[in-house]
Amino acid sequence: MTIRVAIVGLGNLGRGVERALTKNPDMSLVGVFTRRYPGSVATSAPVFPLTAVAEQSGEIDVAILCGGSRTDLPEQGPTLASKVNMIDSFDTHPRIPEYFAAVDRAARAAGTTALISTGWDPGLFSIMRLLGTSALPDGETYTFWGDGVSQGHSDAIRRVPGVVNAIQYTIPAEEALEAVRSGSLPQLSTREKHRRDCYVVAAEGADTSEIERAIVTMPDYFADYDTTVHFISAEQLAAEHSGMPHGGFVLRSGLTSPENRQLMEFRLHLDSNPEFTASVLVAYARAVHRMAQRGEFGAKTVFDIPPALTSPLSGEELRAQLL
Amino acid sequence: MTIRVAIVGLGNLGRGVERALTKNPDMSLVGVFTRRYPGSVATSAPVFPLTAVAEQSGEIDVAILCGGSRTDLPEQGPTLASKVNMIDSFDTHPRIPEYFAAVDRAARAAGTTALISTGWDPGLFSIMRLLGTSALPDGETYTFWGDGVSQGHSDAIRRVPGVVNAIQYTIPAEEALEAVRSGSLPQLSTREKHRRDCYVVAAEGADTSEIERAIVTMPDYFADYDTTVHFISAEQLAAEHSGMPHGGFVLRSGLTSPENRQLMEFRLHLDSNPEFTASVLVAYARAVHRMAQRGEFGAKTVFDIPPALTSPLSGEELRAQLL
Repeated sequence: MTIRVAIVGLGNLGRGVERALTKNPDMSLVGVFTRRYPGSVATSAPVFPLTAVAEQSGEIDVAILCGGSRTDLPEQGPTLASKVNMIDSFDTHPRIPEYFAAVDRAARAAGTTALISTGWDPGLFSIMRLLGTSALPDGETYTFWGDGVSQGHSDAIRRVPGVVNAIQYTIPAEEALEAVRSGSLPQLSTREKHRRDCYVVAAEGADTSEIERAIVTMPDYFADYDTTVHFISAEQLAAEHSGMPHGGFVLRSGLTSPENRQLMEFRLHLDSNPEFTASVLVAYARAVHRMAQRGEFGAKTVFDIPPALTSPLSGEELRAQLL
Repeated sequence: MTIRVAIVGLGNLGRGVERALTKNPDMSLVGVFTRRYPGSVATSAPVFPLTAVAEQSGEIDVAILCGGSRTDLPEQGPTLASKVNMIDSFDTHPRIPEYFAAVDRAARAAGTTALISTGWDPGLFSIMRLLGTSALPDGETYTFWGDGVSQGHSDAIRRVPGVVNAIQYTIPAEEALEAVRSGSLPQLSTREKHRRDCYVVAAEGADTSEIERAIVTMPDYFADYDTTVHFISAEQLAAEHSGMPHGGFVLRSGLTSPENRQLMEFRLHLDSNPEFTASVLVAYARAVHRMAQRGEFGAKTVFDIPPALTSPLSGEELRAQLL
């Protein structure tokens, strides 16, 4: 008896979930539920309209919501939690408290389990921040992102006159990382922690030095960072910058006594951000199913999940093989 | 109302727990319970004989067992779990299943919660191995230890004729670490992953080249490793090698699709192994108390503990500040 999973929304993340399910033989795909139905959805799985989740809720153990945090999830999360167990990757940090409350109300009323904000940040990075703070209460936590593509900054460059296309990478500043690792507990602003690398395709005849000036002086986005602009061809951009790498670091530096400094460091280096996020979602979907079976209803976050529930192995196997 | 903690055994680890408690204002120290009573125990806390745990069990929310895994814990673990909630750092990996079973029987019969094998390995490293395996089922896990002191290897050197004192550091092999980080999924034996650095005080007039030969050719301990021997004075050994640094790495390297490699890396760099282990024990002692209050009795490992239970913060605070 496999855990029956529904994918809601088939963008990059949903496609990643489809792939991740093939690596987890205790789980199976019921189908893809999409607003685009009956439009073209490139999958070999059965495709249903989003509204069919309600009718098929008896066939679904967990729905994995793969929509965006801005408009999709605030609407879909509470609606779906009132019908099925679900998990999502809601990542608009300042809105998490209100989103949690809305999903919690729906899930408690319906008797479902709903795990929000799962993936790597929020998700695994959050667990590291929490365990770091618990293990070293006298210390500081630092989160760095990258090397990875920032969609917002890439879009900002694309709005500069004369720019045809662009990709922006956020890069953690090595000096800042080293300062943290040294145990000196530096005070660092987000901007001291990262630099920005831009790969830009300029229109034919455009003034590249004017484009560069417009980028590096752009307020909020680039003016206060160490920003580098590289002009490349459209072919190069397509060939070398179409991946979705990402990653980052969570560090906790603290003192257990005046003379003893301790450092915890967690790092992710990801070739594909959506595929890794999807893979984490699938592991935690297993936990959602198990918590629902135990009657632990309502909204949850990764903070509430015993790590064992993410694994297909039994308690005995985990203790013998991984403890 | 603070969480009332008893320390059982006051070696380096117990002293670390005493220090860690001062950084956790929601916890208080009931006293130190020791077999050495009424011998000299250097602490400002109340000291009691080990047998007094039973009489005082009503005053103790959690006992933190700080004895050794070879002889102390196999006896004390089940005995104390039958009287109070407890946590320990049992780290004899092959004997964990039988130890878990013995503690579990005692705890279930008594209605206590007993968390075994907590610290950093087993402990935080175990959580990383588990989350790595869950998030990247198609991959390999690697654990490296060091830089850190190996007591067993230091003792082996001290038995070589002409050696007065010695300290041995286990050092992760940088090439092996880089091979793992590259995503090539290398097959590595423990010995390929580490080299050994020895600091030796020789007796006056001893033949240092003979001592060096005896060390680097010693079967099991050094013969198959890249081993370096440094001769130093007793003063230097005392001045530069009396700390108890340790640490290491857990890496999980895996594929989410044929073209996308993903890497998770967790690193600890510890000035004091016992103080960090103690600090983790104290955080998880908080979780033990809370699980006992919920009636979740029996033996547990870190795999069974929702991360939130290790923190003094509420669910709302955790979601707002750390998610």
